[in-house]
Amino acid sequence: MGVVISFEEEQAKAETALARLTALVADDMVKVNQTIIQKMQSPVALIPQLAGHLIASGGKRLRPMLTLAASRMCGYEGIRHAELAACVEFIHSATLLHDDVVDESDLRRGLETANAVWGNKASVLVGDFLFSRSFELMVADGSLEVLAILSNASSVIAEGEVMQLTTANDMDTTEDAYMQVIVAKTAALFAAACEIGAVVAEKPGTKQDALKSYGKNLGIVFQLIDDVLDFSAEQEKLGKSVGDDFREGKVTLPIVLAFRRGDTAERDFWRRTIEELDQKDGDLEKAIDLMTRHNALHDTVERARHYGAIAKDALAIFPDDATRKAMTDIVDFCINRAY
Amino acid sequence: MGVVISFEEEQAKAETALARLTALVADDMVKVNQTIIQKMQSPVALIPQLAGHLIASGGKRLRPMLTLAASRMCGYEGIRHAELAACVEFIHSATLLHDDVVDESDLRRGLETANAVWGNKASVLVGDFLFSRSFELMVADGSLEVLAILSNASSVIAEGEVMQLTTANDMDTTEDAYMQVIVAKTAALFAAACEIGAVVAEKPGTKQDALKSYGKNLGIVFQLIDDVLDFSAEQEKLGKSVGDDFREGKVTLPIVLAFRRGDTAERDFWRRTIEELDQKDGDLEKAIDLMTRHNALHDTVERARHYGAIAKDALAIFPDDATRKAMTDIVDFCINRAY
Repeated sequence: MGVVISFEEEQAKAETALARLTALVADDMVKVNQTIIQKMQSPVALIPQLAGHLIASGGKRLRPMLTLAASRMCGYEGIRHAELAACVEFIHSATLLHDDVVDESDLRRGLETANAVWGNKASVLVGDFLFSRSFELMVADGSLEVLAILSNASSVIAEGEVMQLTTANDMDTTEDAYMQVIVAKTAALFAAACEIGAVVAEKPGTKQDALKSYGKNLGIVFQLIDDVLDFSAEQEKLGKSVGDDFREGKVTLPIVLAFRRGDTAERDFWRRTIEELDQKDGDLEKAIDLMTRHNALHDTVERARHYGAIAKDALAIFPDDATRKAMTDIVDFCINRAY
Repeated sequence: MGVVISFEEEQAKAETALARLTALVADDMVKVNQTIIQKMQSPVALIPQLAGHLIASGGKRLRPMLTLAASRMCGYEGIRHAELAACVEFIHSATLLHDDVVDESDLRRGLETANAVWGNKASVLVGDFLFSRSFELMVADGSLEVLAILSNASSVIAEGEVMQLTTANDMDTTEDAYMQVIVAKTAALFAAACEIGAVVAEKPGTKQDALKSYGKNLGIVFQLIDDVLDFSAEQEKLGKSVGDDFREGKVTLPIVLAFRRGDTAERDFWRRTIEELDQKDGDLEKAIDLMTRHNALHDTVERARHYGAIAKDALAIFPDDATRKAMTDIVDFCINRAY
């Protein structure tokens, strides 16, 4: 993509960043995973079955890791952060269950989605259960400040998801409108996950603000790259199908850029495929070809680098230790997922 | 139904009970309605549109009225109870939106359901929004005890809904299993709505327990009668279609009783229609006929009277004032909805 350094090298470094962050929080993650398993139990057998299917399906657990790392970077030495990290993962899991219903997805992380196995009804209701359970856990922790941050993040996420519904199939969506959607639906939970690390460590003010800003911008990076990956062969390695967004008519940034940079015939192509969802064999390949011709995928990654730089700078006020280094390098890990 | 007194008289008395309760809390309900309108706002226009469609569709607002009346009966003179009553209505509204998706309903209170107008996706997501918003409101109020009660009620409701999914289309469902479902999916929120009235009035112990018990048993009454109404011509007056539960294969108490009291041919009928959902013209009429023959609807109302008596006795420790009288009479109002 016009860069001279070796992608393999970059990628290896990025993978190392994830491994380093994972190692730094490994002991705490044991507790997080125990809490998750314990709190998703219910006498209603379908609940742990369905929730377990999703939760055991091997996500990176990036969001709870961020809560753990953020609190440690703020000097926290207690154990409350592990339960709060589990809350974050529960909220994330609940939104995934509802997302898969809304997107009519069949595949997540290489496995059938819960809605494909147990149906939409069960996915909606178990999502509601995990969401409620997460609030029960927060209440047990007892911090009204954490509750305020995560309940606000939850309603912002829902707003973002509804906003996304209303921009779907609309080629007049601007980059700004797209950004508003992803800041709400994705970045809000990353921001909250990091921010509560400072709250639990009782570091209000500068550190809390810095972590919130880091999380928000990292979340933007994560979603931008996710949207690039939907058109990339790399996606298949992650157990997802290529072109899901295209088939659903989701207007992501690569499509916004390709549309705006295209000529009249190209814009007609986008209106037919995305607005009218009138798609033929070969249309996905043509879409990827147009994106490549107009550097739409490349420039979406460039936009991600911009937000990634803000995320890294936000951390600069923390002591230069292994945790800060791992969190800084995670930004590059998220960007390099694109290759 | 084998009773001698005039139903019209009973019904008139019951309607009066609702009118009396409504009048007692009318001033506070103005504040509740203002809070509801204000807190369902969002820059994402579809959210207030969809939520407003449901919320303006003229429910009785029974649950928030119970919070208001319970707190006043405990001598509360502040204003916090109005915001908490709005939280209760938001949780109820969120579950209605998700229920209508799960049940594939087209009609509620004589109007098209939100999912019929805006689709399932929007209903799931706006439900999530209202649910999150309700927690934001509770956090702003600041009582961890209220948060504990309502977050617990929310996860119990979700458990009850999932349990209901797993008992649907299963004629071996026992009365006990059915009761477990309705205690969770319906009575838990009635109980919580009443209990937080005592919490806000700082009346822990006996009064809080009494209100919780009253709410739980009133909620059971409410759901039992709802399940009777689904087979009653009265249902059409409420703007709902008759036989929805039957068509979906929901195993409610009238069906449990008719099945158990029926002969082999009748049980085969129930297995065909409810388990296999193989339904023909005239099957609903036959189902109602079998229920009538075996007193299944009548006896479901009798069961409701039992729980209603417990609800009334629970209130006996409160001073004998107009509020207690209205809350006691509301039990009969709920039972007399059946006629």
